[in-house]
Amino acid sequence: MADSKASSLLKPLPMKGGDGTYSYSKNSTYQREGLMVTKEAVNEAISKLLDISNTSSTIRIADLGCSIGPNTYIAVQNLIEAVQKKYALKGFSTTEFQVFFNDVATNDFNTLFASLPPENHYFAAGVPGSFYSRLFPESSIDIVHASYALCWLSQVPIEVENKEWNRGKIFYSTSSDEVAEAYAAQFAKDVNNFLNARAKEIVVGGLLILVTPAIPQGFHRSKSAIGFAFDAIGSALMDMANDGIISEAQVDSFNLPYYITTPNEMVKLVERNDCFSIEIMKTPDPFVSKNQPINAKENSDHLRAAFECLIADHFGSSVVDQLFERIDQNEGLYSKLDASYSKVLLLLALKRKPSKGQN
Amino acid sequence: MADSKASSLLKPLPMKGGDGTYSYSKNSTYQREGLMVTKEAVNEAISKLLDISNTSSTIRIADLGCSIGPNTYIAVQNLIEAVQKKYALKGFSTTEFQVFFNDVATNDFNTLFASLPPENHYFAAGVPGSFYSRLFPESSIDIVHASYALCWLSQVPIEVENKEWNRGKIFYSTSSDEVAEAYAAQFAKDVNNFLNARAKEIVVGGLLILVTPAIPQGFHRSKSAIGFAFDAIGSALMDMANDGIISEAQVDSFNLPYYITTPNEMVKLVERNDCFSIEIMKTPDPFVSKNQPINAKENSDHLRAAFECLIADHFGSSVVDQLFERIDQNEGLYSKLDASYSKVLLLLALKRKPSKGQN
Repeated sequence: MADSKASSLLKPLPMKGGDGTYSYSKNSTYQREGLMVTKEAVNEAISKLLDISNTSSTIRIADLGCSIGPNTYIAVQNLIEAVQKKYALKGFSTTEFQVFFNDVATNDFNTLFASLPPENHYFAAGVPGSFYSRLFPESSIDIVHASYALCWLSQVPIEVENKEWNRGKIFYSTSSDEVAEAYAAQFAKDVNNFLNARAKEIVVGGLLILVTPAIPQGFHRSKSAIGFAFDAIGSALMDMANDGIISEAQVDSFNLPYYITTPNEMVKLVERNDCFSIEIMKTPDPFVSKNQPINAKENSDHLRAAFECLIADHFGSSVVDQLFERIDQNEGLYSKLDASYSKVLLLLALKRKPSKGQN
Repeated sequence: MADSKASSLLKPLPMKGGDGTYSYSKNSTYQREGLMVTKEAVNEAISKLLDISNTSSTIRIADLGCSIGPNTYIAVQNLIEAVQKKYALKGFSTTEFQVFFNDVATNDFNTLFASLPPENHYFAAGVPGSFYSRLFPESSIDIVHASYALCWLSQVPIEVENKEWNRGKIFYSTSSDEVAEAYAAQFAKDVNNFLNARAKEIVVGGLLILVTPAIPQGFHRSKSAIGFAFDAIGSALMDMANDGIISEAQVDSFNLPYYITTPNEMVKLVERNDCFSIEIMKTPDPFVSKNQPINAKENSDHLRAAFECLIADHFGSSVVDQLFERIDQNEGLYSKLDASYSKVLLLLALKRKPSKGQN
């Protein structure tokens, strides 16, 4: 039941499907680490905040932007265990769980369903569609989880797409202020649509847990470690344009629909929307478990899993191999990524306010 | 949340996926005609039987054994229109619909989701799993529809698989009584499991609408038109065994997990289970709209769409083309299918009884 006005602007492209070398399922360990470092906060959110008395006998959980696993299964398992622990502590009998795995309709749901854990203790369903529109009936979901999801904009800001504001670049972090502002405006609009849709779907007292890459206050947008990696794709594409393999115009018209927010910005957007209260906010380091030099090849495989579909759609699939070979061959690349760059995750646990309007 | 004991016996293989020449989506017009001839009875069932006051503000509908469209969308649209008509007549305001499309996990859900009608007025979800186990939380579904689904057994009867009871044949319709009885026993067990699972899932007063191929009383099992078509596959396989392309042992160990019931048999099974009351029963002719000679090629393409995955799994995929070429070349085949053969559909509208146990 997509809003036809909104969906006409969307061109959602999924993570790389299947289970091949460059698939998302084989190249999403960074996102998995994100789950590990946020697990404790997620437990805390459910333990403190979830209002069990308000929920029906079935607990319904949605993982938005689930892609094709295995991270989505880990995330869901964490949530279910936290709820079960809370039920046990309250002396309530066990409940049934229904889990909705959501991603865009072009996501590889066949691979997702084929790799469902055989011993899962929930009823699974796949939900195709953009999470910037409604996905579920009114007041039907108890917990929504979205990890590394809200960073994907519904579209590249239309001004950046139409005007030649971002020549030679594919992301806003090292671009002019007007490009960055257009990205921020798109993010603000998307977050508001996201929160309005979820406000309808989540029961009063239900939880919305958001995990997204961020830069803390005090860091300029050009000092985002993720932006640094995106710039590496951008310069490799420009090198290919200089070598006549693609055209500069193609690079100029290609921009990543991705946004790296700040904690303050997200707080303002949630408060302005006014449907949810912010109960927990944390900014963990997503790479806390491995303080070792960046594995350049692993990093570029992660980028490829996330962006191959977008790049192939714009430049043609023949470009993809060459592009990532160039990035891999740029051996000194990550030596420039020093401590002045920021890499944090923003975790927010939000609670649906009773009877608040939508903006 | 499959019952691990039950699921260990299952080897569910889907209809032919994608949208190619031999795909189910391009070769399921017979099943679509089945929807046309049962539409009126479905409307009648919803208009007379659905207890709107007992349902929540969202109407949840499941189409079990949905395969990959477009029939599942037509079936769901018919159901929704019938419910909307009932709401309008009662002067109730519109409700929201959530539709669950179910089939085995190996079903081509990617094709299913890619072809969702763009103007659908419901929240769609795909549910992977065998409908002989639980698929949904307790009391969470208002209407279940299963068309050409319950005819697929959860497995070939184990005695037929193990003993050499059915040599030279792949179906029971022209086999010995002991083979036919083993098939009937498997069907009885499957129907009971199916009804027990649905009894948990469907709200009291909710509807279960079943459409399945049948033969009426008075026809011997060898006089089923569908069985005749299956026998045509069986003899083509035996011809290939005689030509040394496959082995006779391969044919002897291959049996279709499919069952053609009779109205009386289904009535007995539903009554013995005791969770549902039979409210409507009809046996329409599925081919009422075309009284013309059988199109042999169309018929064999339908068989191929339904059975290619099973056949390729047992004999290897290289066999499939040759097999259906042989069937196509048997020009006089369908001239033997005269008026003494039966071709009816059985439509049952069942209502969940209040607080009845399960068997």
